[in-house]
Amino acid sequence: MSEENLYTFENPEYRHTYWHSCSHIMAQAVKRLWPEVKLAIGPAIDEGWYYDLYAPFAFTPEHLEQIEAEMRKICKEKLRIERFELPRDEALRFMADEPFKVELINDLPEGEVISFYKQGEFTDLCAGPHLDSTGRVKGNALKLTACNAAYWRGDSNRETLQRIYGIAFPKKEELDAYLAKRAEAFKRDHNKLGRELEFFTTVDVIGQGLPVLLPKGARVVQLLQRWIEDLEQSKGYLLTKTPLMAKSDLYKISGHWDHYLDGMFVLGDPTDETKECFALRPMTCPFQYQVFLNRQRSYRDLPMRLGETSTLFRNEDSGEMHGLIRVRQFTISEGHLILRPDQLEEEFKGCLELAKYCLGTLGLLEDCTFRFSQWDPANPNNKYEGTPEQWDEAQRVMGQILDDLGVEYTVGIDEAAFYGPKLDIQYHNVFGKEDTLVTIQIDMLLAQRFGMYYIDENGEKALPYIIHRTSMGCYERTLAYLIEKYAGALPCWMCPEQVRILPVTDRALDYARDIEEKLLTQGFRVTTDSRGEKIGRKIRDAQMEKIPYMLVVGDRDMENNTVSPRHRSGTDLGAMSFDAFTAMLRQEVDSKTIK
Amino acid sequence: MSEENLYTFENPEYRHTYWHSCSHIMAQAVKRLWPEVKLAIGPAIDEGWYYDLYAPFAFTPEHLEQIEAEMRKICKEKLRIERFELPRDEALRFMADEPFKVELINDLPEGEVISFYKQGEFTDLCAGPHLDSTGRVKGNALKLTACNAAYWRGDSNRETLQRIYGIAFPKKEELDAYLAKRAEAFKRDHNKLGRELEFFTTVDVIGQGLPVLLPKGARVVQLLQRWIEDLEQSKGYLLTKTPLMAKSDLYKISGHWDHYLDGMFVLGDPTDETKECFALRPMTCPFQYQVFLNRQRSYRDLPMRLGETSTLFRNEDSGEMHGLIRVRQFTISEGHLILRPDQLEEEFKGCLELAKYCLGTLGLLEDCTFRFSQWDPANPNNKYEGTPEQWDEAQRVMGQILDDLGVEYTVGIDEAAFYGPKLDIQYHNVFGKEDTLVTIQIDMLLAQRFGMYYIDENGEKALPYIIHRTSMGCYERTLAYLIEKYAGALPCWMCPEQVRILPVTDRALDYARDIEEKLLTQGFRVTTDSRGEKIGRKIRDAQMEKIPYMLVVGDRDMENNTVSPRHRSGTDLGAMSFDAFTAMLRQEVDSKTIK
Repeated sequence: MSEENLYTFENPEYRHTYWHSCSHIMAQAVKRLWPEVKLAIGPAIDEGWYYDLYAPFAFTPEHLEQIEAEMRKICKEKLRIERFELPRDEALRFMADEPFKVELINDLPEGEVISFYKQGEFTDLCAGPHLDSTGRVKGNALKLTACNAAYWRGDSNRETLQRIYGIAFPKKEELDAYLAKRAEAFKRDHNKLGRELEFFTTVDVIGQGLPVLLPKGARVVQLLQRWIEDLEQSKGYLLTKTPLMAKSDLYKISGHWDHYLDGMFVLGDPTDETKECFALRPMTCPFQYQVFLNRQRSYRDLPMRLGETSTLFRNEDSGEMHGLIRVRQFTISEGHLILRPDQLEEEFKGCLELAKYCLGTLGLLEDCTFRFSQWDPANPNNKYEGTPEQWDEAQRVMGQILDDLGVEYTVGIDEAAFYGPKLDIQYHNVFGKEDTLVTIQIDMLLAQRFGMYYIDENGEKALPYIIHRTSMGCYERTLAYLIEKYAGALPCWMCPEQVRILPVTDRALDYARDIEEKLLTQGFRVTTDSRGEKIGRKIRDAQMEKIPYMLVVGDRDMENNTVSPRHRSGTDLGAMSFDAFTAMLRQEVDSKTIK
Repeated sequence: MSEENLYTFENPEYRHTYWHSCSHIMAQAVKRLWPEVKLAIGPAIDEGWYYDLYAPFAFTPEHLEQIEAEMRKICKEKLRIERFELPRDEALRFMADEPFKVELINDLPEGEVISFYKQGEFTDLCAGPHLDSTGRVKGNALKLTACNAAYWRGDSNRETLQRIYGIAFPKKEELDAYLAKRAEAFKRDHNKLGRELEFFTTVDVIGQGLPVLLPKGARVVQLLQRWIEDLEQSKGYLLTKTPLMAKSDLYKISGHWDHYLDGMFVLGDPTDETKECFALRPMTCPFQYQVFLNRQRSYRDLPMRLGETSTLFRNEDSGEMHGLIRVRQFTISEGHLILRPDQLEEEFKGCLELAKYCLGTLGLLEDCTFRFSQWDPANPNNKYEGTPEQWDEAQRVMGQILDDLGVEYTVGIDEAAFYGPKLDIQYHNVFGKEDTLVTIQIDMLLAQRFGMYYIDENGEKALPYIIHRTSMGCYERTLAYLIEKYAGALPCWMCPEQVRILPVTDRALDYARDIEEKLLTQGFRVTTDSRGEKIGRKIRDAQMEKIPYMLVVGDRDMENNTVSPRHRSGTDLGAMSFDAFTAMLRQEVDSKTIK
């Protein structure tokens, strides 16, 4: 990065520093308005900053506006921001009025530098860095965006604080653009829209992270699952259906017991060795390996491609649950390829192409990037199985394959699975947040642990490579992203209801039923709105529900034996024959067109 | 039953008495041969009898033959069988040499009559009844069929005994017929054949009752599931996908916590009220109700028919596990219909017809009987929810419907669900053993517990009826019965592999591949056996795997552009055009023909 770019928003470090200074300005404004408020911590985050505050009242939107106004004043005051250090005892005296800061200072290790940043009358305990003046922040380009509850130190047994979030940019237009994009994203939020459109719900008495897929959501997932199962079957995958739980014995062999126990739901007492202890599966691998192990395999049996529509369980914290994206139970198109070493590159390529085809067909690929997730050689023993040599070899092979395939990727250190490196396909959602959607992993360790040998061409026992992979990731999460990407108006081929027939009057009801029957026979998903409502209301309701096609049928259609399709986008396609309409619909569905 | 039929094998009580006396004759024979053997218990069972024995050696097949020979002698001796009673202290002295009998006597409640049956030199503690003479038993029509281990009193902490099973009939021909049928059943046993044909396996490190469906089994289940889902969808069912676990809160509302906790897998400590406690679901009902509860429903929304391909968990004892029939996790086509009272009969009829259609299509209906499972008014409080009035009403309604539909049924007292009466469709398997395959239940209680009201035509809140039902029961168990019914040769439409192409020589390989491709394009499941094996071997292997059609392709087929299908039954269908073959296959598959 050239010198002139150092102090621009393009530079993540500068952006971070800018937002961090905003957080101090916000704290200063709060203290000016309500000196009794106590300060906890106020970091910069991926988008903006927050400050956790302890106040004897609840912050309202009006309070936030007051704070913003005070922040603008502080910016105009162009206060110099100065750093100084204090010895521990002086630091404690200096912050005696701020109990959370006192706790932070007490927790600092002996000998650690204790630094402060001062701007005008306000000083905060802080490691920095910061801008050199409050005047650097553009007062008209900042916004406090939200306020919610947070536990002090994330500990539910400690004080409940109020966390105020803010965002700022160097120019007002940038802030406006950001806020507009965010407002649009909020409208698309699957956790709101997906509930409104009745794709899913959650229920207190069932629990967090355990969404109930309502008929619409269940139907989309059914369609996606069948599509993926059929696609995999056509690529030579063999379907399996393996148990959702196993005794601890299985996980001890696989290494999940040592490396993943915290993330697992255990039935029984894992510390009592005298009793049978089961656990729900967090991954399919050790189960699907049993299919390979069912009898002796020869080199002629490889590659063996196993696929499963697999339900998994992860014991995540309640606080991390979110709609269909962070859940405790999910279903994934999971599979394992068991290979001779000479088949690795070809099969890896096949996995990557299949995943790209699936994500491309869904329209999600354009929002994806690739990450080559490696182990952390500095931290090998706690998280990873295998020797440094084995990791070097697996990562060398994977790097070579990625380079051969021309995949553009970033490297993620300490992001590997405990048994091997991964290619992660990262999805960037409408909020700009990144999550792993698909992962393709190379595993050189587990075959040995499970004794998964094959007989090679020389009649010798040989260890296969294993690829762990998914075609499109987990169905719940994919449904969430589809809802957000298409603002609920899913591509026609996967819509739970593709056509709704809207008779203008009761006279048209028989004609409508007749059309419905014919469309159903052709395999389309159709209903008729036979309510005694006005046609305007029927159209509005269908549009709200994002039904791709409405067939408004009235007297003229009955006379001319036509239908008059209307697309949910508002386009009126005019009168056409039934056959013309079904030909158009068939083409759109079969080609999985995204409109 | 008329007087002359009282002492025939048609009379279950007489049969039971006959077998019970056989058990005494067997014990007498054992004691004559090895006086040191100690006797435990020896009841009659559904088919024959057993006696549990404590011996200082293991009984071999040769031992069993010796016992049989001695039994035949005892029959010929025509010993009179006489009953007598003893006071407790005398009974104890009399049986002082038989520690298990002593324990049984000690466990008898005070005042209980203690009776013995004596035949010749042999006397056994027994409540009877018995035949009047060992001469009533036909010595040439009895057989000891098996010997295996059993714990004294079923308690794994007590002595391990040896249980010898026997069977007997009044005529030798009846015994021979029985043994032949049993041998045939053993050949069909899914727990043997299903493993040999690689439909499923079990794995020690996963655990008992948790079968792994191998690709063939998984494919059959996939095909059955899709068939049922599509069928239900065409009948107006809405598909749901609800979580496999919930907090105890849900089960406390449904009553499962009070009535079913022993049968559930619990994650956490059910007695610790301060912590979240989850349990895997043993039934789908309380989950699917949440779909109804998602918003207010009106009388116009009813009937609401909800269906789910639902995985359930039951915490059964290890000892009860058996292949695909007694398992800890299974998947079922489960559904609930939420109804206005006026819709109950019509919808119940629909459920029954659907189940009969499904079982009929599978060919299983002919082996089914119907059982009207009712509560036990003598034992209401422990097992059942609701008042006697509610039960009387639900059973009256159900009885009325069954009579209206002309269903022939037996009544099962104390066989109801805890929330209502059931119609159980009982399957009688190749061993003659009876199990519930399908159940249709009427529930008048749970709607109230969950507050599942709808708004009726008068704008008032009203409670719906609920039908709990399945279309064909659980997929694992159905697969087991199909394997046994068809001795592994499943109907073509559900076969994982429908056609195998067998090129006679390598010259025919391209032609074979071409045919394979064309069949795949038409949606059939096909492979080509391209191994360098002789054609005889290829045919034998395909026949062993019960592939419905083998297409042997040789030079003549290539010249004439024909195929020469061979059915797995051995029938050679002769050369025919490819189109003629696919037309035949299409017809067989689409009509779900059973050959």
